[in-house]
Amino acid sequence: MTTHVFSFGDGKADGDPKRRDLLGGKGAGLAEMTQLGLPVPPGFTISTEACNVYAATHAHPGGLAAEVAAALARVERSLGMRFGDASAPLLVSVRSGGRASMPGMMDTILNLGLNDATCEGLAARSGNRKFALDAYRRFIAMYATIALGAKKEPFDHAMDDLRAELAQARGVDASRMNAEELKRAVPDSEFTEPLLERMVASFKELVLAHSGKPFPSDPHAQLWGAIEAVFGSWNNDRAVYYRRMHDIPDSWGTACNIQAMVFGNLGDASATGVAFTRNPSTGERALFGEWLPNAQGEDVVAGIRTPMLIRGDKGTLEAAMPAAYAELVRISNALEAHFRDMQDLEFTIQEGKLFMLQCRNGKRTGRASVRIATELVKEGALSREEALLRVEPESLNQLLHPTIDPKAEKRLLAKGLSASPGAASGTVVFDAAEAKRMAAQEKAVILVRVETSPEDIQGMQAARGILTARGGMTSHAAVVARGMGKPCVAGTTSVHVNYQTQTATFSMEPGAPPIVLKKGDTLTIDGATGEVFAGAVPTVPAGVTGEFEELMRWADAARTLGVRANADTPEDAQTARAFGAEGIGLCRTEHMFFGGTRIDAVREMILADTAEHRARALAKLLPYQREDFVGIFRAMNGLPVTVRLLDPPLHEFLPDRPEQIKDLAAAIGVSEQVVTQRAKDLHELNPMLGHRGCRLAITYPEIYAMQVRALFEAAKIAASEGVVVKPEIMIPLAVSKAELDAMRAIVTRVEKEVGEVGAYQFGTMIELPRAALLADELAQTAEFFSFGTNDLTQATLGLSRDDAGSFLGEYVEQGLLPKDPFVSIDQDGVGQLVKLACERGKRTRPDIKLGVCGEHGGDPASVAFFHGVGLAYVSCSPKRLPIARLAAAQAAVRTRGGKSGASTA
Amino acid sequence: MTTHVFSFGDGKADGDPKRRDLLGGKGAGLAEMTQLGLPVPPGFTISTEACNVYAATHAHPGGLAAEVAAALARVERSLGMRFGDASAPLLVSVRSGGRASMPGMMDTILNLGLNDATCEGLAARSGNRKFALDAYRRFIAMYATIALGAKKEPFDHAMDDLRAELAQARGVDASRMNAEELKRAVPDSEFTEPLLERMVASFKELVLAHSGKPFPSDPHAQLWGAIEAVFGSWNNDRAVYYRRMHDIPDSWGTACNIQAMVFGNLGDASATGVAFTRNPSTGERALFGEWLPNAQGEDVVAGIRTPMLIRGDKGTLEAAMPAAYAELVRISNALEAHFRDMQDLEFTIQEGKLFMLQCRNGKRTGRASVRIATELVKEGALSREEALLRVEPESLNQLLHPTIDPKAEKRLLAKGLSASPGAASGTVVFDAAEAKRMAAQEKAVILVRVETSPEDIQGMQAARGILTARGGMTSHAAVVARGMGKPCVAGTTSVHVNYQTQTATFSMEPGAPPIVLKKGDTLTIDGATGEVFAGAVPTVPAGVTGEFEELMRWADAARTLGVRANADTPEDAQTARAFGAEGIGLCRTEHMFFGGTRIDAVREMILADTAEHRARALAKLLPYQREDFVGIFRAMNGLPVTVRLLDPPLHEFLPDRPEQIKDLAAAIGVSEQVVTQRAKDLHELNPMLGHRGCRLAITYPEIYAMQVRALFEAAKIAASEGVVVKPEIMIPLAVSKAELDAMRAIVTRVEKEVGEVGAYQFGTMIELPRAALLADELAQTAEFFSFGTNDLTQATLGLSRDDAGSFLGEYVEQGLLPKDPFVSIDQDGVGQLVKLACERGKRTRPDIKLGVCGEHGGDPASVAFFHGVGLAYVSCSPKRLPIARLAAAQAAVRTRGGKSGASTA
Repeated sequence: MTTHVFSFGDGKADGDPKRRDLLGGKGAGLAEMTQLGLPVPPGFTISTEACNVYAATHAHPGGLAAEVAAALARVERSLGMRFGDASAPLLVSVRSGGRASMPGMMDTILNLGLNDATCEGLAARSGNRKFALDAYRRFIAMYATIALGAKKEPFDHAMDDLRAELAQARGVDASRMNAEELKRAVPDSEFTEPLLERMVASFKELVLAHSGKPFPSDPHAQLWGAIEAVFGSWNNDRAVYYRRMHDIPDSWGTACNIQAMVFGNLGDASATGVAFTRNPSTGERALFGEWLPNAQGEDVVAGIRTPMLIRGDKGTLEAAMPAAYAELVRISNALEAHFRDMQDLEFTIQEGKLFMLQCRNGKRTGRASVRIATELVKEGALSREEALLRVEPESLNQLLHPTIDPKAEKRLLAKGLSASPGAASGTVVFDAAEAKRMAAQEKAVILVRVETSPEDIQGMQAARGILTARGGMTSHAAVVARGMGKPCVAGTTSVHVNYQTQTATFSMEPGAPPIVLKKGDTLTIDGATGEVFAGAVPTVPAGVTGEFEELMRWADAARTLGVRANADTPEDAQTARAFGAEGIGLCRTEHMFFGGTRIDAVREMILADTAEHRARALAKLLPYQREDFVGIFRAMNGLPVTVRLLDPPLHEFLPDRPEQIKDLAAAIGVSEQVVTQRAKDLHELNPMLGHRGCRLAITYPEIYAMQVRALFEAAKIAASEGVVVKPEIMIPLAVSKAELDAMRAIVTRVEKEVGEVGAYQFGTMIELPRAALLADELAQTAEFFSFGTNDLTQATLGLSRDDAGSFLGEYVEQGLLPKDPFVSIDQDGVGQLVKLACERGKRTRPDIKLGVCGEHGGDPASVAFFHGVGLAYVSCSPKRLPIARLAAAQAAVRTRGGKSGASTA
Repeated sequence: MTTHVFSFGDGKADGDPKRRDLLGGKGAGLAEMTQLGLPVPPGFTISTEACNVYAATHAHPGGLAAEVAAALARVERSLGMRFGDASAPLLVSVRSGGRASMPGMMDTILNLGLNDATCEGLAARSGNRKFALDAYRRFIAMYATIALGAKKEPFDHAMDDLRAELAQARGVDASRMNAEELKRAVPDSEFTEPLLERMVASFKELVLAHSGKPFPSDPHAQLWGAIEAVFGSWNNDRAVYYRRMHDIPDSWGTACNIQAMVFGNLGDASATGVAFTRNPSTGERALFGEWLPNAQGEDVVAGIRTPMLIRGDKGTLEAAMPAAYAELVRISNALEAHFRDMQDLEFTIQEGKLFMLQCRNGKRTGRASVRIATELVKEGALSREEALLRVEPESLNQLLHPTIDPKAEKRLLAKGLSASPGAASGTVVFDAAEAKRMAAQEKAVILVRVETSPEDIQGMQAARGILTARGGMTSHAAVVARGMGKPCVAGTTSVHVNYQTQTATFSMEPGAPPIVLKKGDTLTIDGATGEVFAGAVPTVPAGVTGEFEELMRWADAARTLGVRANADTPEDAQTARAFGAEGIGLCRTEHMFFGGTRIDAVREMILADTAEHRARALAKLLPYQREDFVGIFRAMNGLPVTVRLLDPPLHEFLPDRPEQIKDLAAAIGVSEQVVTQRAKDLHELNPMLGHRGCRLAITYPEIYAMQVRALFEAAKIAASEGVVVKPEIMIPLAVSKAELDAMRAIVTRVEKEVGEVGAYQFGTMIELPRAALLADELAQTAEFFSFGTNDLTQATLGLSRDDAGSFLGEYVEQGLLPKDPFVSIDQDGVGQLVKLACERGKRTRPDIKLGVCGEHGGDPASVAFFHGVGLAYVSCSPKRLPIARLAAAQAAVRTRGGKSGASTA
């Protein structure tokens, strides 16, 4: 028969600490600490398998009752106490504990086993009846709310009434005090025995009123009620929601830990606390934590009493209880040495004796994560490769961008998509031009738009951050902001932006009045969390450390996947190089079209009614493009630069506001009607599937010819300065070899005209399913493929990144799609096409260069996938390069190390 | 060494008539007639391979000169004449002839071998110097324009001058006559010998002036010049364009036929003519054709003299030359018996003797095609299966829709896409509501729109035909018009529609003033050709014949592929059944939402701000949907009905014009602002990739619940009347099993609520690449797949059917895509996904039902593809059912018969 119950205590544990899947994290930690000979109160763990049986059948697996009884008997024997025995009452805690940590998501019941008789027994044994009664009233309230489903408020109100009574008895007028004031006037520590007796009686009445039955006095009935509550808590709303957010499978289940109580509230020689073996904020190597004398664990987190630091200036555990402190330091060191990672510990000191209640790998900031991992290597505890696996790539964002000061007071207005990390405060501005003007006056502005368009680029550049009401993780605002390394919160559906009234209205929870911000008001956005706050919230600046640089060097040594950047300007290219780019994987030439007078030439070109007129306008653009390319070649000296020829539909370049149309018409000497009509003609119902990419060059070959000429001429200029240029010409949106041949013909013709342009490569994006399916044919002409996974995702799923905001959240929440496919590549669907295109491309051209330049190039899970399918490089926003480098290193280490390497993560 | 020259003559032919690839159609026909012992002037064919060598290298394959010389010598021996010999001059014709007929696209030179000496020799031998001079002047002009690249006009002008001179000499004032009048005043037959001599001299001077060299008098030089001209003509603009239009590969090349001249212009015992073995318009079994006495072939087609009927009331060949006629009838019968198909013949009678110059399968109308094929079966010449392969499926359109009277005078205004066949005339109307009003007054109207939207449905129904300026073959207008069986010309980019001025402006050729039609003017559209004509052009009504019905019965017996219809109303369902539907493959429920008061309830539902309010609005819709379904079930008694739940994005149902918004706001009691705001909120940048299909039901499950309830309740009502109902519930736009499971849960819940709904199937459309890629998972829940190849094409190629109009034409013309992928399925790309989804679906569920309901279900090439991949059925517009049935039969016959079956087509 399967064993479902695993005992621990007295230096022995039945469960295998490696079986976190069976014991849960907490159970595994308790088993491991017990095996290490540390002072752990005895107890037992009921496995996740039993939870799953209960969740599926609402019944317990056969034999569970007998196993629990046997395990409980072992605890009784170990301590010489008995469950329900008034003379030596054993009390237990019942706690949930899943495979992954889900802090605060599931339930815990303390002091279980108390009833009127055992309470008096506890009073007698501890010599502290007040303590016993306090434990009893706490237990009744806790059990009622968790195991019996009662509401918490009636219990709070009953306590408030008793507090008020006590205050009145002391001559204090409590009639006008609120709950907080009452608590301060009559703290728990001042409860008297008679008051606690009345509280117990009052709580029992509340239970009777709630459930129609008296409070269960039988400790065994209490125990099974608690076990079922813990198992049930796996599927409470909070837990389910948390799992969705953190990709934790429903099938894991939770274990249930039953452990003998120890008491930190038995007087001044008792205490409780939490500790980290290193500082979780900074990573400093020194015991860090908080404690409270004469308290139970819940007091530390409840916030009624302010905990003290374990080490520090005053009120330290070190000073108050030197022996227990020394023991804690010893144990802390032993645990770190054993787990080779920073540990998060819970402990209780009962009348001078230290007990360990939990240990697990501690959560930490990105900064701490990097420092701890690198220092553990220097201490000889970890290999470099192991250290690389210890740092969550996304956590590097905290080093690379300003973050909200964790201690700051703040008022949440809305939560949108965490589109581009970093925190920023500024004045609300609704117009890109206005943002530019105000920024020129050294004002910090936040650009607030329904959505952004290419016209807004300069305003976005000028703003400290961008907030949009619409659009997903790969909407224009999100993509451009990430490219600029600028904070952005996108798709904030609860805000309504009104350009006419120049207001942003934030809908709050139902019933609450909306909050209206006007132009000129201040707000703060946190692009890493998607949060929007009122006013200016203090931030912590970005800053990379020596340890970070070191970790990056190790990552570069470990990884096999190349890392390039998406960069459109010489400035971006310099940033990219500073962040470790080994080339540019995507230089979007259209962004170059938006500068000052260039846009006029672009518009003139679009409005041209003959090929010659178009050629004239293009000739004006040529010098600008050439200059940009020269700058980029200089910045990337010696490294490859992939230039994507014009991609967006032409209507994106035309203005849509009447006054702009008027200006444009005047500037190029045509009637407004001509501009309006051309814009109308170019209008598309589904521009994403329209006249764009190389389709433009089929209709207007002269556009690509100009771009290629600018590129070749720039290459010659740069080369003449001694710069090593490695241009790669990339064709967007191709679906057939014939298109590529037509494009190749343009390139070859211009090459002949320009003459001696040096070596270059010619390739294509793979961004439509047909291109992937016909990759073998495309590879006959293309020397490289770069997967445009944004567009490939849109087409494969039939999902517009700009429009999906209204339902994609629901999709991910309901588990209809595993993740937002614009954030992390849809491996099941889009991934199949990527794999297939790689195979077919290589079949035709074994040395074909394969890369990816979609947003997924900076997503760790996607990077691991791209490593797996054998791409040569990923390309991402400059500021995501460190993340990509680390993710690539992790993928390489995991591939080399197999599963065992991965499991130390 | 490869043989490039194949002689024919004297009852023997070197070439194998089956090798049309090598000999071309004309060469094969000549070889075959020769082998049959028919009177064919001797000659030889230079193969297409030689043409391809010349096209690639501008040089002739080795040995060709020797082969030509030998073949020419054979002709000389056969006739006892010699090339360039004045005493017995051999003259030849040099004609192109590709594998497929490309009428008028390539070049022919007659009378080659003439020079001053042989002309006199011909005069002497024929005893007719005028004839010889006439042949000579014709030859010089022909050779100059074709082989030497001279323009035709100078030759015409020279002749006009001589005509005018002759007229003046006769006392007629020709100074104010135009060319036509001159021709009537002085017909060719009245040319005198001196005049012809001057003409020859004048033509020679023109040649000298044009090429700087005298006219080549060496017949061998003439011959090679002509051969190279014929080979070169394969790549002239007309020919290249024709090949693109008719899917003829560039690689086929043309053969060159050199044949001894016979003369139909040697006097009244000579004649020339063309004949069909059966009537090409009606299919009637009787020799049909035209002839001219004393004429060369070019006179018949030139239109200067009016040819006479071979059989008929007067001027018949039968009466004029009974012996030659009898011989022609005998040969005609022999050729039909041999080829077992209607033949198109060219013949010449030289001084009473009949010569055959060409035979090939004759082009015919759809009506004739059906009659000939069925009668050939009855005559025992063909099997039924062979007959099925003889009818081009698309040609059935001519029996099913009115066509433009071929004899009608007409003025072409524009050419758009042939979006839905049929011809119709009517008053121009620019507004759907206006169309409805006028149609109610019994007026015939043509609805002219930039593009149509679902709001226009009733106006489209009311109109005789639809003309749009935008949108492709699967735009809303095209799809809906085909569904209605109504003529539609879509994507007419040369027309500019202005709703404000209520005008349609047709741009004509450059330089010509545009033509403006106002509301109330009349125009005619031909949806089969895409042509738009001014005024009311007479039409020939549709009409199916007994032969058609018979052919359809044979088709049904032969095919294995099921044929269903796309039908949304009981009326459509009845039509579909009449046209042979074996079920409904696609019932689009959204079209049901547009009727009178229904649309109000739909809009109320969309504007609802709570689920209850939405439910109230949906409750109003339920009875309508139920009633529609009952009607459809009755019409399809015993046959399956696939109902697709709501698919389009909700904003399609909201009005966009201010007065409509006002009305709607008043009707449902909200402010206009609410309507406008909701419309704004629902607006999408790329609605095709937006919140539609089952994504709607994830957000608003109550919509699908209502539809399923209506369906189940209707099934119960119909069943209670004794109707056999076979409902199939189809989910649009799914990309994951999880979505299907969520939809299945809605269906199951409603099923339980409604109770005893009988058997039904649950399935999904496969219309996005991800659905195809994950077909194995989807098949776990779906009992059937129906490929939505319209959307699948859009997503796979990243091509919006509504927007592709601006460049797709160019794509097909330039050969960047083999065909318009919305007309004929893109087998290379989309086809891969269809195949893969079939395989994966069957792997999970071996008995999964596979069908297609995209527009491709009515395209013959696509139907053959679907047959090949093993689908169970195709579904198409009711009026395309006969085409689909025939195409399916052809696919089955070809599969059974292998290549040999196909080659008889």
